[in-house]
Amino acid sequence: MLSSVLFIIGINMLKVNHILQAIALTLISSASFATPAKNIILIIGDGMDDHQVTIARNYLVGPAGQLTLDNMPVRSSVAVLTVDEEDPNKPVFVADSANTASAIATGVVTSKGRISTTPNTNQPVTTLMELAAEAGIATGVVSTASVTDATPASFLSHSKYRGCESPNMMNPSASYYGIIKPRCDTDSKANGGPGSIAEQLVESQAQVILGGGTKHFDHISDSDGQHLLKKAQQAGFGVVQNREALLNANTTRLLGLFSPSTMPVMWRGDEGRKAEFLADNDAPFGCEAEPTFTGMPTLREMTSKALDLLSRNDKGFVLMIESASVDKQSHARKPCGHIGEMKQLDDTLKLALTYAEKHPDTLILVTADHGHAAQIIPAQSLFAALGAENHSSGRVAMVTTPHGEVMAINYATNSGKGSEEHTGVQVPLYGNSVAEGLLPSHINQPELFGVMTAYLGL
Amino acid sequence: MLSSVLFIIGINMLKVNHILQAIALTLISSASFATPAKNIILIIGDGMDDHQVTIARNYLVGPAGQLTLDNMPVRSSVAVLTVDEEDPNKPVFVADSANTASAIATGVVTSKGRISTTPNTNQPVTTLMELAAEAGIATGVVSTASVTDATPASFLSHSKYRGCESPNMMNPSASYYGIIKPRCDTDSKANGGPGSIAEQLVESQAQVILGGGTKHFDHISDSDGQHLLKKAQQAGFGVVQNREALLNANTTRLLGLFSPSTMPVMWRGDEGRKAEFLADNDAPFGCEAEPTFTGMPTLREMTSKALDLLSRNDKGFVLMIESASVDKQSHARKPCGHIGEMKQLDDTLKLALTYAEKHPDTLILVTADHGHAAQIIPAQSLFAALGAENHSSGRVAMVTTPHGEVMAINYATNSGKGSEEHTGVQVPLYGNSVAEGLLPSHINQPELFGVMTAYLGL
Repeated sequence: MLSSVLFIIGINMLKVNHILQAIALTLISSASFATPAKNIILIIGDGMDDHQVTIARNYLVGPAGQLTLDNMPVRSSVAVLTVDEEDPNKPVFVADSANTASAIATGVVTSKGRISTTPNTNQPVTTLMELAAEAGIATGVVSTASVTDATPASFLSHSKYRGCESPNMMNPSASYYGIIKPRCDTDSKANGGPGSIAEQLVESQAQVILGGGTKHFDHISDSDGQHLLKKAQQAGFGVVQNREALLNANTTRLLGLFSPSTMPVMWRGDEGRKAEFLADNDAPFGCEAEPTFTGMPTLREMTSKALDLLSRNDKGFVLMIESASVDKQSHARKPCGHIGEMKQLDDTLKLALTYAEKHPDTLILVTADHGHAAQIIPAQSLFAALGAENHSSGRVAMVTTPHGEVMAINYATNSGKGSEEHTGVQVPLYGNSVAEGLLPSHINQPELFGVMTAYLGL
Repeated sequence: MLSSVLFIIGINMLKVNHILQAIALTLISSASFATPAKNIILIIGDGMDDHQVTIARNYLVGPAGQLTLDNMPVRSSVAVLTVDEEDPNKPVFVADSANTASAIATGVVTSKGRISTTPNTNQPVTTLMELAAEAGIATGVVSTASVTDATPASFLSHSKYRGCESPNMMNPSASYYGIIKPRCDTDSKANGGPGSIAEQLVESQAQVILGGGTKHFDHISDSDGQHLLKKAQQAGFGVVQNREALLNANTTRLLGLFSPSTMPVMWRGDEGRKAEFLADNDAPFGCEAEPTFTGMPTLREMTSKALDLLSRNDKGFVLMIESASVDKQSHARKPCGHIGEMKQLDDTLKLALTYAEKHPDTLILVTADHGHAAQIIPAQSLFAALGAENHSSGRVAMVTTPHGEVMAINYATNSGKGSEEHTGVQVPLYGNSVAEGLLPSHINQPELFGVMTAYLGL
């Protein structure tokens, strides 16, 4: 009896399938002019590891609350991969923002300090943005850092060293991030090379470039003696340098530079407080508005303008948005600084999700490039009852939340006067509903490039 | 034309649906006696945050490799919640293993040191294992700690303080984890209370209890003058105290105690090396077998026996497995120790997945209770090229991986001679394919209780 039932179903299903197929073909052919474009909004929290997310949640919505991030339906972890410059077969366990953004932008694992070039052999590697632009897809970058800084630079340019941001920096006199003064002389325009990062941005196919970094564009190109901002205008960019001009901008291409270098951050500790050695000052402090942020566009405002301009393209867009100072404020042991920049990221994500609701083929990914120093430790040692004088040997901030609780944040990766270190922890990856089925539960960072190019059919 | 096509499909689909429904009902009624039991395997890596997972991956399979953990199809993050003992409305940002295991076991947020009792009001809260046992579902705990330690204890007992492990400890003379010498006198059997944790385990409904902790059972109960192991035997437990006896055990109930307290760990640093202040010793070291582990059953072997015994129950089982010394070795700044215990966890997970393949209604969850101190920092400061003498102010281990690379691990949450601190970071949560649709991408730790009871229909 069962087999005869299945036989009947078989016949019926075959008929149904044929009919459905016919309808589908009809619908596709009649709708082909209205197929919605595919878009990608990639949000990078620089240094935004699980600790940064937790610190921000505790402060902004309480430990049991939910950030917009927490409501993203897809959650993965990302292994950060870095290799040695001299021996690219040898892994290095802690990255910088240059090699990690390069991995996301190109799919290639490289060495610290490199901007979308191969380790040791120094060859440029095609970026997601370059592939997208070739296919007629609009591209843009938004960052709270200088737009020539490592993360945005890796999507739009190629350099052996992140420090080669402008024509005058092609032979950097100082060095950082463990890179020993690499010289970019041979890459300069004068020597027939691609030029500094700022010059490459001006010559890129990007439609929207928004962030800090005015000082890197206030130079004469050594190829043709033209000022870089003049060259940008000649390339069709509207150039805006303050919030009001940004909000009113309506040019097809837009270069917005709102501060000389990294943009001011939104928050700081009360009266500028930051983490200190506990013996020096263990008084709790809260967060307040950072005065220098006054008049700056928010990350959300820059993103809103970018979405407005990019979405005019029929073939879709790729937009990379970086909340850069999660990292920079962690280096500087300023918890209110990085909490505020996490808030900027979360507010921007909310805007992106609203956009995606109206444009359903918009893939939203949120991730970090590498981990950072900050750790939540007990406000009183777990072992305080033992009577020993135990506390962190690093710098600690006792941050009072808006609800009056004290969260102790430890920065103890580098005891020097300079800066905290990055860490090698795996970082979070979030996706909106469009990402369902596209992301494994754990992924190697360069594979994000493949996820995005596959989504766009590049 | 389209509407008439849809009309035809509508008719056909209706017929098809009716036939499919009839078949489904037939299949269900004929198979009702063979409905597979639902099982839960809950694996807790004590202190296993994202840093611990990354450290283990880097050492065991390389940064681009995949642990068994990494292949789990479902990945979430878990917010760890703790409240103040005096004011339970006030969140505390760093937990201990007692309140976190209690949250998972009961769904209730409590204060540090408590074993499945309410903060301040000290009321017992029904545990997952108690609910399961009531429903005829077999229950068991396996741990590399003493089975009376906080994590297993929270699933099978209730106490105001984790330290009240045995009859002689009801008024602990020393204290730790920030709890100031709470006395459990009133909970003693002599005073008509539920007794010490060891006494409660012996009287619990658990079918399998395996781990360390012999010393906590080598006592006379003050209720009836009987030795605790004798009482266990009277309650139907086979009692085994070495690996061979474990492997050969075939009793319905089984209590296995393989060391006086915490079980020895699998690995140690070469010649017992651990993290030190860099000024004292910055020579890299690898990992080697820990001599005292010889003869111990592995976590996988204990789990294998537990699965064997528990799966004999027609109504399914709940098994909690703890790799406890990820935490304890991190407290002690012993990277090889916690890497080895992560390997034990990963090997055990592999076994659990194999079991679940043959028993498809087995939900596997892997999570941690809280974060821990260890951080991967750059082997050479990111700022070394600046010439400043910068390094961590904490203790650092330069661990040589099997591939000869050096991974620097920093422990800098407590400068004292004692122990590193827990951290307040959100922790990972992994699920097998059965978990798909059951776990949001971010969850508050106590909600895991509801996920598990809902799965079992409790």
